[in-house]
Amino acid sequence: MDGCPHCAGVGEDRLWEGATHRVVLVHQDGFPGWCRVIWNTHVGEYTDLSEGERARFMHTVALVEEALRAELKPAKINLASLGTAMPHLHMHIIPRFPDDPTFPDPVWLPPVRATNRALPPQFSDTMRARLAVLDPAG
Amino acid sequence: MDGCPHCAGVGEDRLWEGATHRVVLVHQDGFPGWCRVIWNTHVGEYTDLSEGERARFMHTVALVEEALRAELKPAKINLASLGTAMPHLHMHIIPRFPDDPTFPDPVWLPPVRATNRALPPQFSDTMRARLAVLDPAG
Repeated sequence: MDGCPHCAGVGEDRLWEGATHRVVLVHQDGFPGWCRVIWNTHVGEYTDLSEGERARFMHTVALVEEALRAELKPAKINLASLGTAMPHLHMHIIPRFPDDPTFPDPVWLPPVRATNRALPPQFSDTMRARLAVLDPAG
Repeated sequence: MDGCPHCAGVGEDRLWEGATHRVVLVHQDGFPGWCRVIWNTHVGEYTDLSEGERARFMHTVALVEEALRAELKPAKINLASLGTAMPHLHMHIIPRFPDDPTFPDPVWLPPVRATNRALPPQFSDTMRARLAVLDPAG
Protein backbone atom coordinates (compact mmCIF):
# COMPACT_ATOMS: atom_id res chain seq x y z
CA MET A 1 0.00 0.00 0.00
CA ASP A 2 1.24 3.48 -0.88
CA GLY A 3 2.79 5.22 2.11
CA CYS A 4 3.07 2.08 4.24
CA PRO A 5 6.64 1.69 5.55
CA HIS A 6 6.15 -2.04 6.12
CA CYS A 7 5.10 -2.54 2.51
CA ALA A 8 8.07 -0.49 1.31
CA GLY A 9 10.55 -2.07 3.74
CA VAL A 10 13.23 0.43 2.76
CA GLY A 11 16.42 0.45 4.81
CA GLU A 12 15.48 -2.52 6.98
CA ASP A 13 18.20 -4.58 8.68
CA ARG A 14 16.70 -8.00 7.94
CA LEU A 15 17.72 -10.94 10.13
CA TRP A 16 15.55 -13.44 8.30
CA GLU A 17 13.22 -13.33 5.34
CA GLY A 18 10.57 -15.87 4.39
CA ALA A 19 7.85 -16.01 1.78
CA THR A 20 5.14 -14.69 4.12
CA HIS A 21 6.98 -12.74 6.82
CA ARG A 22 10.37 -11.41 7.86
CA VAL A 23 12.39 -10.47 10.95
CA VAL A 24 14.00 -7.04 11.25
CA LEU A 25 16.47 -5.62 13.77
CA VAL A 26 15.35 -2.13 14.73
CA HIS A 27 18.19 0.24 15.51
CA GLN A 28 16.43 2.29 18.16
CA ASP A 29 18.56 4.40 20.50
CA GLY A 30 18.48 3.04 24.03
CA PHE A 31 16.74 -0.22 23.09
CA PRO A 32 19.41 -2.54 21.66
CA GLY A 33 18.02 -5.77 20.28
CA TRP A 34 14.54 -4.44 19.46
CA CYS A 35 13.20 -6.74 16.72
CA ARG A 36 10.08 -6.81 14.59
CA VAL A 37 8.36 -9.71 12.89
CA ILE A 38 6.58 -8.19 9.90
CA TRP A 39 3.98 -9.89 7.70
CA ASN A 40 5.02 -9.31 4.12
CA THR A 41 1.62 -8.41 2.67
CA HIS A 42 -0.54 -5.51 3.85
CA VAL A 43 -2.69 -7.41 6.34
CA GLY A 44 -4.06 -5.36 9.23
CA GLU A 45 -4.86 -7.67 12.11
CA TYR A 46 -3.54 -10.90 13.59
CA THR A 47 -6.95 -12.49 13.04
CA ASP A 48 -6.88 -11.56 9.36
CA LEU A 49 -4.38 -14.42 9.06
CA SER A 50 -5.51 -18.01 8.66
CA GLU A 51 -4.94 -20.33 11.62
CA GLY A 52 -1.89 -21.81 9.90
CA GLU A 53 -0.46 -18.37 9.19
CA ARG A 54 -1.04 -17.29 12.79
CA ALA A 55 0.85 -20.36 14.02
CA ARG A 56 3.81 -19.67 11.73
CA PHE A 57 3.85 -15.96 12.67
CA MET A 58 3.85 -16.75 16.41
CA HIS A 59 6.40 -19.53 15.95
CA THR A 60 8.76 -16.91 14.54
CA VAL A 61 7.89 -14.44 17.30
CA ALA A 62 8.71 -17.12 19.87
CA LEU A 63 11.99 -18.02 18.18
CA VAL A 64 13.04 -14.35 18.17
CA GLU A 65 12.03 -14.01 21.83
CA GLU A 66 14.02 -17.12 22.78
CA ALA A 67 17.05 -15.89 20.83
CA LEU A 68 16.92 -12.46 22.48
CA ARG A 69 16.58 -14.01 25.93
CA ALA A 70 19.54 -16.31 25.29
CA GLU A 71 21.79 -13.67 23.76
CA LEU A 72 20.95 -10.58 25.84
CA LYS A 73 19.51 -11.88 29.16
CA PRO A 74 16.97 -9.05 29.40
CA ALA A 75 14.97 -8.36 32.56
CA LYS A 76 11.79 -8.71 30.49
CA ILE A 77 10.56 -9.12 26.94
CA ASN A 78 7.78 -6.86 25.68
CA LEU A 79 5.58 -8.04 22.81
CA ALA A 80 3.36 -5.54 21.00
CA SER A 81 1.36 -5.48 17.80
CA LEU A 82 -0.06 -1.97 17.48
CA GLY A 83 -0.02 -0.42 13.99
CA THR A 84 -2.85 1.93 14.88
CA ALA A 85 -1.82 4.68 12.48
CA MET A 86 -0.93 2.29 9.64
CA PRO A 87 -2.48 -1.15 10.00
CA HIS A 88 0.12 -3.58 8.63
CA LEU A 89 0.65 -6.56 10.91
CA HIS A 90 3.94 -6.58 12.76
CA MET A 91 4.97 -7.67 16.25
CA HIS A 92 7.58 -5.79 18.25
CA ILE A 93 9.81 -8.01 20.38
CA ILE A 94 11.62 -5.66 22.74
CA PRO A 95 14.22 -6.71 25.30
CA ARG A 96 13.92 -4.54 28.41
CA PHE A 97 16.71 -3.67 30.83
CA PRO A 98 16.63 -1.77 34.13
CA ASP A 99 18.87 0.90 32.59
CA ASP A 100 16.82 1.41 29.42
CA PRO A 101 15.29 4.85 28.76
CA THR A 102 11.77 4.11 30.05
CA PHE A 103 12.12 1.00 32.26
CA PRO A 104 9.80 -0.26 33.75
CA ASP A 105 7.29 1.80 31.78
CA PRO A 106 6.30 1.17 28.14
CA VAL A 107 8.90 2.10 25.56
CA TRP A 108 6.56 4.66 23.98
CA LEU A 109 6.73 7.01 26.98
CA PRO A 110 9.24 9.87 27.07
CA PRO A 111 12.73 8.71 28.12
CA VAL A 112 13.70 9.29 31.74
CA ARG A 113 17.34 8.25 31.36
CA ALA A 114 19.99 7.62 28.74
CA THR A 115 21.78 4.32 28.36
CA ASN A 116 25.05 3.28 26.79
CA ARG A 117 24.08 -0.37 26.53
CA ALA A 118 25.25 -1.81 23.22
CA LEU A 119 24.71 -5.10 21.45
CA PRO A 120 27.39 -7.76 21.82
CA PRO A 121 29.77 -8.21 18.88
CA GLN A 122 28.42 -10.65 16.27
CA PHE A 123 24.87 -10.19 17.61
CA SER A 124 23.35 -9.88 14.12
CA ASP A 125 25.26 -12.89 12.83
CA THR A 126 24.22 -14.96 15.84
CA MET A 127 20.58 -13.97 15.40
CA ARG A 128 20.71 -14.80 11.68
CA ALA A 129 22.16 -18.22 12.50
CA ARG A 130 19.46 -18.88 15.10
CA LEU A 131 16.67 -17.84 12.71
CA ALA A 132 18.05 -19.85 9.81
CA VAL A 133 16.16 -22.89 11.14
CA LEU A 134 12.86 -21.27 10.09
CA ASP A 135 11.10 -22.60 7.02
CA PRO A 136 11.68 -20.07 4.21
CA ALA A 137 8.24 -20.95 2.82
CA GLY A 138 6.73 -19.73 6.10
CA MET B 1 3.54 -14.34 44.05
CA ASP B 2 3.11 -11.79 46.83
CA GLY B 3 2.23 -8.36 45.47
CA CYS B 4 1.37 -9.59 41.98
CA PRO B 5 -2.08 -8.31 40.95
CA HIS B 6 -2.45 -11.06 38.34
CA CYS B 7 -1.82 -13.74 40.96
CA ALA B 8 -4.28 -12.09 43.33
CA GLY B 9 -6.89 -11.39 40.61
CA VAL B 10 -8.96 -9.34 43.03
CA GLY B 11 -11.91 -7.42 41.59
CA GLU B 12 -11.53 -8.77 38.06
CA ASP B 13 -14.52 -8.80 35.71
CA ARG B 14 -13.93 -12.27 34.28
CA LEU B 15 -15.45 -13.11 30.90
CA TRP B 16 -14.06 -16.64 30.83
CA GLU B 17 -12.01 -18.78 33.15
CA GLY B 18 -10.08 -21.94 32.28
CA ALA B 19 -7.69 -24.15 34.17
CA THR B 20 -4.58 -22.42 32.79
CA HIS B 21 -5.71 -18.93 31.79
CA ARG B 22 -8.62 -16.50 31.95
CA VAL B 23 -10.12 -13.53 30.08
CA VAL B 24 -10.85 -10.28 31.89
CA LEU B 25 -12.74 -7.16 30.81
CA VAL B 26 -10.74 -4.11 31.90
CA HIS B 27 -12.86 -1.13 32.80
CA GLN B 28 -10.50 1.59 31.66
CA ASP B 29 -11.90 5.08 31.07
CA GLY B 30 -11.86 5.96 27.38
CA PHE B 31 -11.02 2.45 26.20
CA PRO B 32 -14.25 0.43 26.27
CA GLY B 33 -13.78 -3.24 25.47
CA TRP B 34 -10.16 -3.48 26.64
CA CYS B 35 -9.60 -7.13 27.51
CA ARG B 36 -6.75 -9.13 28.99
CA VAL B 37 -5.88 -12.79 28.62
CA ILE B 38 -4.02 -13.69 31.81
CA TRP B 39 -2.05 -16.88 32.46
CA ASN B 40 -3.21 -18.20 35.82
CA THR B 41 0.19 -19.10 37.26
CA HIS B 42 3.07 -16.65 37.77
CA VAL B 43 4.87 -17.26 34.48
CA GLY B 44 6.90 -14.32 33.16
CA GLU B 45 7.35 -14.72 29.43
CA TYR B 46 5.40 -16.13 26.49
CA THR B 47 8.31 -18.49 25.79
CA ASP B 48 8.18 -19.82 29.35
CA LEU B 49 5.07 -21.67 28.17
CA SER B 50 5.29 -25.01 26.38
CA GLU B 51 4.40 -25.04 22.69
CA GLY B 52 0.98 -26.47 23.47
CA GLU B 53 0.35 -23.82 26.12
CA ARG B 54 1.43 -21.06 23.72
CA ALA B 55 -1.02 -22.35 21.12
CA ARG B 56 -3.89 -22.38 23.61
CA PHE B 57 -3.00 -18.92 24.94
CA MET B 58 -2.90 -17.44 21.42
CA HIS B 59 -6.07 -19.29 20.42
CA THR B 60 -7.84 -17.47 23.23
CA VAL B 61 -6.21 -14.15 22.28
CA ALA B 62 -7.46 -14.63 18.71
CA LEU B 63 -10.97 -15.52 19.85
CA VAL B 64 -11.12 -12.38 22.01
CA GLU B 65 -9.79 -10.28 19.12
CA GLU B 66 -12.38 -11.75 16.73
CA ALA B 67 -15.17 -11.16 19.24
CA LEU B 68 -14.11 -7.54 19.82
CA ARG B 69 -13.89 -6.91 16.08
CA ALA B 70 -17.34 -8.40 15.52
CA GLU B 71 -19.03 -6.64 18.44
CA LEU B 72 -17.34 -3.22 18.40
CA LYS B 73 -16.00 -2.72 14.85
CA PRO B 74 -12.84 -0.92 16.07
CA ALA B 75 -10.51 0.93 13.68
CA LYS B 76 -7.68 -1.28 14.97
CA ILE B 77 -6.85 -3.89 17.57
CA ASN B 78 -3.71 -3.46 19.67
CA LEU B 79 -2.07 -6.53 21.20
CA ALA B 80 0.53 -6.09 23.92
CA SER B 81 2.25 -8.32 26.45
CA LEU B 82 4.44 -6.04 28.59
CA GLY B 83 4.50 -6.79 32.33
CA THR B 84 7.86 -5.08 32.71
CA ALA B 85 7.32 -4.02 36.32
CA MET B 86 5.69 -7.30 37.37
CA PRO B 87 6.42 -10.19 35.02
CA HIS B 88 3.22 -12.28 34.98
CA LEU B 89 2.18 -13.23 31.46
CA HIS B 90 -0.89 -11.41 30.16
CA MET B 91 -1.87 -10.08 26.74
CA HIS B 92 -3.80 -6.85 26.37
CA ILE B 93 -6.34 -6.88 23.52
CA ILE B 94 -7.36 -3.27 23.05
CA PRO B 95 -9.94 -2.05 20.54
CA ARG B 96 -8.90 1.36 19.20
CA PHE B 97 -11.23 4.06 17.88
CA PRO B 98 -10.46 7.41 16.24
CA ASP B 99 -12.14 9.19 19.17
CA ASP B 100 -10.25 7.32 21.91
CA PRO B 101 -8.01 9.33 24.28
CA THR B 102 -4.68 8.63 22.54
CA PHE B 103 -5.58 7.50 18.99
CA PRO B 104 -3.52 6.80 16.90
CA ASP B 105 -0.74 6.72 19.50
CA PRO B 106 -0.20 3.95 22.05
CA VAL B 107 -2.71 3.84 24.90
CA TRP B 108 0.06 4.43 27.46
CA LEU B 109 0.66 8.02 26.33
CA PRO B 110 -1.09 10.93 28.06
CA PRO B 111 -4.67 11.41 26.80
CA VAL B 112 -5.20 14.14 24.23
CA ARG B 113 -9.01 13.96 24.19
CA ALA B 114 -11.92 12.62 26.20
CA THR B 115 -14.45 10.20 24.78
CA ASN B 116 -17.98 9.25 25.73
CA ARG B 117 -17.91 5.99 23.81
CA ALA B 118 -19.64 3.25 25.80
CA LEU B 119 -20.01 -0.48 25.37
CA PRO B 120 -23.21 -1.73 23.78
CA PRO B 121 -25.84 -3.18 26.13
CA GLN B 122 -25.30 -6.89 26.79
CA PHE B 123 -21.64 -6.62 25.70
CA SER B 124 -20.36 -8.70 28.61
CA ASP B 125 -23.04 -11.35 28.11
CA THR B 126 -22.28 -11.54 24.40
CA MET B 127 -18.55 -11.87 25.06
CA ARG B 128 -19.15 -14.58 27.66
CA ALA B 129 -21.29 -16.50 25.17
CA ARG B 130 -18.63 -16.19 22.46
CA LEU B 131 -15.87 -17.36 24.80
CA ALA B 132 -17.90 -20.28 26.15
CA VAL B 133 -16.68 -22.39 23.21
CA LEU B 134 -13.18 -22.46 24.74
CA ASP B 135 -12.01 -25.67 26.38
CA PRO B 136 -12.18 -25.11 30.16
CA ALA B 137 -9.15 -27.39 30.54
CA GLY B 138 -7.19 -24.89 28.39
